[in-house]
Amino acid sequence: MIEAFDDSYFMKKALAEANLAFERDEIPVGAVVVSNQSIIARGHNLTEMLTDVTAHAEMQTITAAANYLGGKFLRDCTMYVTLEPCQMCAGALYWSQLSRLVIAAPDEHRGYRKMGAQLHPKTTVEFGILEAESASLLKEFFKKKR
Amino acid sequence: MIEAFDDSYFMKKALAEANLAFERDEIPVGAVVVSNQSIIARGHNLTEMLTDVTAHAEMQTITAAANYLGGKFLRDCTMYVTLEPCQMCAGALYWSQLSRLVIAAPDEHRGYRKMGAQLHPKTTVEFGILEAESASLLKEFFKKKR
Repeated sequence: MIEAFDDSYFMKKALAEANLAFERDEIPVGAVVVSNQSIIARGHNLTEMLTDVTAHAEMQTITAAANYLGGKFLRDCTMYVTLEPCQMCAGALYWSQLSRLVIAAPDEHRGYRKMGAQLHPKTTVEFGILEAESASLLKEFFKKKR
Repeated sequence: MIEAFDDSYFMKKALAEANLAFERDEIPVGAVVVSNQSIIARGHNLTEMLTDVTAHAEMQTITAAANYLGGKFLRDCTMYVTLEPCQMCAGALYWSQLSRLVIAAPDEHRGYRKMGAQLHPKTTVEFGILEAESASLLKEFFKKKR
């Protein structure tokens, strides 16, 4: 039986965002922020289009979610992101006090764990939801770029 | 003899930004980005006013400087910032490949060094320019808040 609003459901929405990035020739990473079973923010990497290294999917959705909530903390929110956040995004999530972070694919090179950055102690983390789909999209992107 | 455009000169401009943050009841941190002896971006912490944890002085000036330069890298730029960057801002500076970072006061609790985050290997770092002035402004702010 398929559950309507389980982790796979929301990660598919994040992957749809990553696909939009792919179509715009951006490194395909997408994210959604969920509160009370509803998506309150969605975004994808736009660093090339905006000429801005800070325009990662996570950064945009943190800002958008806080704007929606009218407060800067995401204490009762879950973020679904298709690639492990970098140290910048982990640092932003730290300040947001995000409740739960669900990650599709690990980033062995520039992921926050490898770089040494920290999430907030109150944030729970889960890896591997739709990992193969996310990794495949990234692989296809970098293959196209070579 | 006073040099016209030395590190103290530019850090004073960053401190002026920090003072603007103080006046707006924001944690008083300011930054400027300098390229070819000219200030190409300036900003101060606006996390409360914008209800956005990502609105640190450094993040805003990275975005503004890239916008000015028409490219996302700050390879020939110096950032002057009145407080040691957090891991989010260090992560953004990492991606920007900033050439030089000049910091007034250390942040022993939430600074990027304490948190474990990394700047880009090509970024040179200098601490202590107008440290007392910056630390004093921060101290005054938190005293007012108690």
